[in-house]
Amino acid sequence: MTHEIAVIPGDGIGQEVTPAAVSVLEALETVDFEFVEAAAGDAVKAETGEALPQETRDIAADADATLFGAAGETAADVILPLRDVVGSFANVRPARSYPGLDAVQPDTDIVFIRENTEGVYSGIENEIVDGVRTLTRVVTEDASRDIAEFGFDYAKQNGYDDVTIAHKANVMRETDGLFLETAEAVAAERGADYDTALMDALAMHLVMTPEEYDVVICPNLAGDMLSDLAAGLVGGLGLLPSANVGEENALFEPVHGSAPDIAGEGIANPSAMVLSAAMLLDHLGYDEEAGRVRDAVEAVLESGPRTPDLGGDASTEAVTAAIVDEL
Amino acid sequence: MTHEIAVIPGDGIGQEVTPAAVSVLEALETVDFEFVEAAAGDAVKAETGEALPQETRDIAADADATLFGAAGETAADVILPLRDVVGSFANVRPARSYPGLDAVQPDTDIVFIRENTEGVYSGIENEIVDGVRTLTRVVTEDASRDIAEFGFDYAKQNGYDDVTIAHKANVMRETDGLFLETAEAVAAERGADYDTALMDALAMHLVMTPEEYDVVICPNLAGDMLSDLAAGLVGGLGLLPSANVGEENALFEPVHGSAPDIAGEGIANPSAMVLSAAMLLDHLGYDEEAGRVRDAVEAVLESGPRTPDLGGDASTEAVTAAIVDEL
Ligand SMILES: CC(C)[C@H](C(=O)O)[C@@H](O)C(=O)O
Ligand SMILES: CC(C)[C@H](C(=O)O)[C@@H](O)C(=O)O
Repeated sequence: MTHEIAVIPGDGIGQEVTPAAVSVLEALETVDFEFVEAAAGDAVKAETGEALPQETRDIAADADATLFGAAGETAADVILPLRDVVGSFANVRPARSYPGLDAVQPDTDIVFIRENTEGVYSGIENEIVDGVRTLTRVVTEDASRDIAEFGFDYAKQNGYDDVTIAHKANVMRETDGLFLETAEAVAAERGADYDTALMDALAMHLVMTPEEYDVVICPNLAGDMLSDLAAGLVGGLGLLPSANVGEENALFEPVHGSAPDIAGEGIANPSAMVLSAAMLLDHLGYDEEAGRVRDAVEAVLESGPRTPDLGGDASTEAVTAAIVDEL
Repeated sequence: MTHEIAVIPGDGIGQEVTPAAVSVLEALETVDFEFVEAAAGDAVKAETGEALPQETRDIAADADATLFGAAGETAADVILPLRDVVGSFANVRPARSYPGLDAVQPDTDIVFIRENTEGVYSGIENEIVDGVRTLTRVVTEDASRDIAEFGFDYAKQNGYDDVTIAHKANVMRETDGLFLETAEAVAAERGADYDTALMDALAMHLVMTPEEYDVVICPNLAGDMLSDLAAGLVGGLGLLPSANVGEENALFEPVHGSAPDIAGEGIANPSAMVLSAAMLLDHLGYDEEAGRVRDAVEAVLESGPRTPDLGGDASTEAVTAAIVDEL
């Protein structure tokens, strides 16, 4: 069986790390892929006026899964509609530290399960009068239920004990109130244990005692911030993969952006992108191969060549070759 | 000249740390205070049905300044209206590490200038249909201008070089767009240097390299989360004071809450509350006295008795007595 994978490198280091991930997938041999490349981002916008051409949407919609690199200024114009195209309701963002790598908190292993469709990402903004603008933050019971069910199932399937529901229901009483109450109802239906945490207090606790957290179910923007916070704990965005999961389709992307400061130098850390490819393998049911890719990345992080963001001076290519060697 | 100070201890450890701050202020001798105590929080709600009685509002409104401890379940019902009663538009939250104290990042010295009136704190929420709720996030040019002017002035007056404007204008284009564009206009008028940062990326950078930041101007909820994050970097909420500043009036409170887990044991760390009293002294124009209080707190943190949250076993009273001794 051949899996059609849409490959959207995008801008900046997306152009460097995406081919790295593709070459790791190609090196597996036990899985058949057909890669279909598509354009998105600043460069294609400059050419065509559109950051996300219809053809790219169609390719992502039709593929079995999508690998996305990064986009520059147009990031929001690319990734938000792409999440929609693949019908993604859950954004899965594992943040873990690795043996042998400098980290602010070397004992971190947390998976953020971020609601991926609503909250302040609704796109509904208005100018009421000159100088007064509003944004309509949307929270629905359906989306809250979907993300909570996904989060509790994920925790169970992956053997995680501690589930935390993040919210700010003391201030956003109706909207986060609904999010919280729905997530608690899901926990009760499953007989699952959980904690709840105000997202501000949680930010502090994650910094001080990340080892106390396993799976954190979050509203959209809270998940955006908390997962980046956790990236800081483990050594930066160069290490964090993510999966945008829908009912059938899914899109995989590193949490990092296009990093214009180092783009074109061939020194971008491919780890986050390769780990995103491992999540793609999980998604397609190739657990064994996903494990091999993760182990290879981990082995290289521990004792292989390192890119400058991790204190080394190796190139993207050298690190990728080392990962392929370890497979 | 006698300064009338409203004192609202509230619930839990608020009842323990507020008297500590009052006794430090009383020990100064060079400033005349009249303290007027008022009730707010869970306990008064249980008695009277109201978490924030009208009498307490009136006392805070009439006083020269207010010292507030903490409230429990009713925290939002107490502190949000109180911020409004004193006309506070700016929430000033310094987060710094202290020599000799364990900290995740021992080189942190950042002041968050948090917009204190709008954003998702508007209180405007609706149930559109069953299971679909909205919150109206409000951003105005006036409030954005007020907080930016305050922030840039604060940086200048306190000798801070780096001002960062936090936002999420790539997603909240109109609302945070207005916040950002207004703050940039203020910077331009003043000829001030600044950086801008997406709040998610900023969360990561604050964790990894807090030493690169001085003053961070934030929308309301971003300031709430980022300042708690920074509390985690410097050793916890027991160290962070805050000022809610209005045109004339102001309210001073620790960033921590009522800490029900340790309430009543007499072991709460009074530092955040005493440092909030130092901010009150600044506000009233007693810079020298404010400096004395800060130096005393710092001396005790470095080599005096410590409460359990800082690894010691001293009581609130013992730490307070040590601070008074150092004055
Ligand atoms: C680029 C931006 C729209 C996006 C988001 O806010 O979701 C990014 O920060 C992310 O986390 O993937
Ligand atoms: C209690 C709550 C309403 C409050 C806030 O969100 O402002 C608190 O978290 C704070 O930071 O003072």
